[in-house]
Amino acid sequence: MQQRDVVVIGGSAAGLMTATTIKRRYPQKSVTVIRNVSRTPVPCGIPYIYGTLRAVEKNLIPDEMITNQGIEIVASHVEDVDRSSKIVSFKDHESIKYEKLVMATGSKPIVPPLPGIELENVFAVAKDPFFLQRIFSALQVARDVVVIGGGFIGVEMAEQIARLQAEIQADTQVSLIEMQDCCLSLACEKEFGREVEEELRKESVALYLSSQVRNLEADSKGKVKAVCLSDGNTVKADVVILGIGARPNIELAESMGLKTDPQGGVVVDEYMQTSDPDVYSAGDCATKFSFFTGKPSGVRLASIAASEGLIAATNIFKPKTRKTIGALGAFATKVGERSIGAAGYTTAAAQQEGIEFVVGEASSPNRHPGGLPGSMNTKVKMLFRKEDGVLIGGHVCGGEAAAEMANVMAVAMQAKLTAEDLATMQYATHPLLTAAPTSYQIMLAAEFAAVQMRG
Amino acid sequence: MQQRDVVVIGGSAAGLMTATTIKRRYPQKSVTVIRNVSRTPVPCGIPYIYGTLRAVEKNLIPDEMITNQGIEIVASHVEDVDRSSKIVSFKDHESIKYEKLVMATGSKPIVPPLPGIELENVFAVAKDPFFLQRIFSALQVARDVVVIGGGFIGVEMAEQIARLQAEIQADTQVSLIEMQDCCLSLACEKEFGREVEEELRKESVALYLSSQVRNLEADSKGKVKAVCLSDGNTVKADVVILGIGARPNIELAESMGLKTDPQGGVVVDEYMQTSDPDVYSAGDCATKFSFFTGKPSGVRLASIAASEGLIAATNIFKPKTRKTIGALGAFATKVGERSIGAAGYTTAAAQQEGIEFVVGEASSPNRHPGGLPGSMNTKVKMLFRKEDGVLIGGHVCGGEAAAEMANVMAVAMQAKLTAEDLATMQYATHPLLTAAPTSYQIMLAAEFAAVQMRG
Repeated sequence: MQQRDVVVIGGSAAGLMTATTIKRRYPQKSVTVIRNVSRTPVPCGIPYIYGTLRAVEKNLIPDEMITNQGIEIVASHVEDVDRSSKIVSFKDHESIKYEKLVMATGSKPIVPPLPGIELENVFAVAKDPFFLQRIFSALQVARDVVVIGGGFIGVEMAEQIARLQAEIQADTQVSLIEMQDCCLSLACEKEFGREVEEELRKESVALYLSSQVRNLEADSKGKVKAVCLSDGNTVKADVVILGIGARPNIELAESMGLKTDPQGGVVVDEYMQTSDPDVYSAGDCATKFSFFTGKPSGVRLASIAASEGLIAATNIFKPKTRKTIGALGAFATKVGERSIGAAGYTTAAAQQEGIEFVVGEASSPNRHPGGLPGSMNTKVKMLFRKEDGVLIGGHVCGGEAAAEMANVMAVAMQAKLTAEDLATMQYATHPLLTAAPTSYQIMLAAEFAAVQMRG
Repeated sequence: MQQRDVVVIGGSAAGLMTATTIKRRYPQKSVTVIRNVSRTPVPCGIPYIYGTLRAVEKNLIPDEMITNQGIEIVASHVEDVDRSSKIVSFKDHESIKYEKLVMATGSKPIVPPLPGIELENVFAVAKDPFFLQRIFSALQVARDVVVIGGGFIGVEMAEQIARLQAEIQADTQVSLIEMQDCCLSLACEKEFGREVEEELRKESVALYLSSQVRNLEADSKGKVKAVCLSDGNTVKADVVILGIGARPNIELAESMGLKTDPQGGVVVDEYMQTSDPDVYSAGDCATKFSFFTGKPSGVRLASIAASEGLIAATNIFKPKTRKTIGALGAFATKVGERSIGAAGYTTAAAQQEGIEFVVGEASSPNRHPGGLPGSMNTKVKMLFRKEDGVLIGGHVCGGEAAAEMANVMAVAMQAKLTAEDLATMQYATHPLLTAAPTSYQIMLAAEFAAVQMRG
């Protein structure tokens, strides 16, 4: 039987980050990563396979990132983990005895129990290269594609599929169906979601907002042919993509008798330790709590997974060295020409929590003077808690630096900075790269909020 | 005689920011901005007049930004300010009586006392549209242009002039002369400065590093014809541009009897108040202290000017409301294809201060997977103080988001975050906009430093 210091089950963001961090911190420890796929797709890159990269193999995490550091990869299905004897067993691979185990089994796409959901050409987005290739093959001959769900994955898939279809087929239609009255409403301000919708329409995506799917209709061969909505509308569909979220993949953890929560995942403390002191968990499969409230959080992101991997790996041989601050939720996307970033609360979420807050907004070209090439108006909206002035939400929409501007706000939020702090800080600016120093959006939005708070 | 609540002398970053902030906070106050130029150029945009905008008038701050808010502009030279009677007088304009005065007179380019410096076609870069137009006219017929000084202004001028010359003249040469052995050495890490030099060479700029100018040579008509170096080299020159820095413009302040420092400028406290309680000062003309050491600082930037304007304006009718944290120095530029950002200490400066520090470095494409369009390797280098782990320097070189990445680090630095803080924070990432969540450069550079500090 093989013997390893650390076995990591799962090879995506959390697993990779945990394994490489352990190896960096403890080069002498033997580390094996087990994954149930031949290769690991870049998770966030999946939509871009279809409209931009045009090949599944261009969106794979290079195995050398792992093996170069002396980490072994086992591509096989784990059959069982016996925690008392510390043995991982497989159907088709020699068992491995571990000293420490990390559960990084990720999440599975949610498949809603709709009539017709089992039809051919209805796809959830599973992170498996073969499966992603099946989607690609189906898309290449499809005329009518329906994406269900207007969150990040749904919006990005719709945009990319529209680009693919526009090139390879005449007379095609991509449709996006969203239950809420706005896309990206969980993470973004409504007005920025509206800009994303505008970009989708420019890419000829038909939007069905405030729309609920009732059932999927089959053709005579058992393939999907339409998506029927609760309002009586029917949307033609050769291919249906489900993008309505994911739930933690905890079957193995349950079978091992680890403490789990059906909604939240493998129960971990703030050190990412499970109910078994020799087992840690990180990423989409692990329970999370909100950075702001400490309450359970359903936010699952590769960035949180990476951070949790760093934390789990640090604690594994030096318990309680490092703890998570909780899930913040820092997002970015680009749809059409518009980039969007967000961190923390939206207006709607803050209102729902009953938090009193002050909003600061500033808008300015991301070049100065605004006539320079590549100039695009970039808007920032920030939410500050009334009670103490602390930043609790940051939103940006405009040029490509939006993601890093969201990070300026994400870091500020994690450092619990106030409107006053952010109004009096100094920021790097440059004509070709940012707004002018006198109209830098984050500084001005903070100043506008500070003025209101004094008022 | 006119009577105003606030008179601001100077219409660039500090003056504009002070005036608009006062008007926002106290809409009922009358505010006049006095400037000695017909229009105000966007200060940081000046180099881009020559190679990109190709017109001085495309780089002017729109006066409506000021007048729309009910602020009056007077374009005239101040002849005298009598602080006892609170009267500003002019040669060609009615005198103005003020309640509060703000000195935002900026800086003047340094003109070194070199033999030949007074020759025709030798230009310092003054922020006056007519003067900038004279430079443009001279450049349009020049074959050999020499830029003296390899800081931001020199490097940007050299790059832009090279682009202009390449289009309008055959057989031209732009040369850059720098005393230090590397460009941008005051603000940037040497290895990033080297990348800038490489970009300049791609634009056919000839670099003379570690080179000192001895004198300028005239042709028979009194025009400059060459720049002679201390090592005996002679560089042909039809036009010479000086980019070796600026000094505070304090003549008026001196004549008014305000406390001044010949190097540092108009002496202000941390509230931007001068030795006269009714007179504030902000921007390049005001003394600064270092964010890190509290010692006098020579860093002059439009971003600091903007921040100081916000601070002065807040205190002017509510003394001591808001104070400056000191000059941080947050920079960005783009040369050729490469963007650079920096905040705080360089390695050289930290060593010179005798600070012990740990370096964390991470390099990764700014897209994920790296094969996505627009992908560019982006490097981050961070300096953390050994004593307490606090971030004291942040440097980035690569894609266009470099300026906002510098801002992530600038905010972290101003919030006194440590390597441990930054390693365990969450960052927004996206395939088309940033590095992968598992290789986000700021997080990883902080983690690498954290590992060393534990070691």
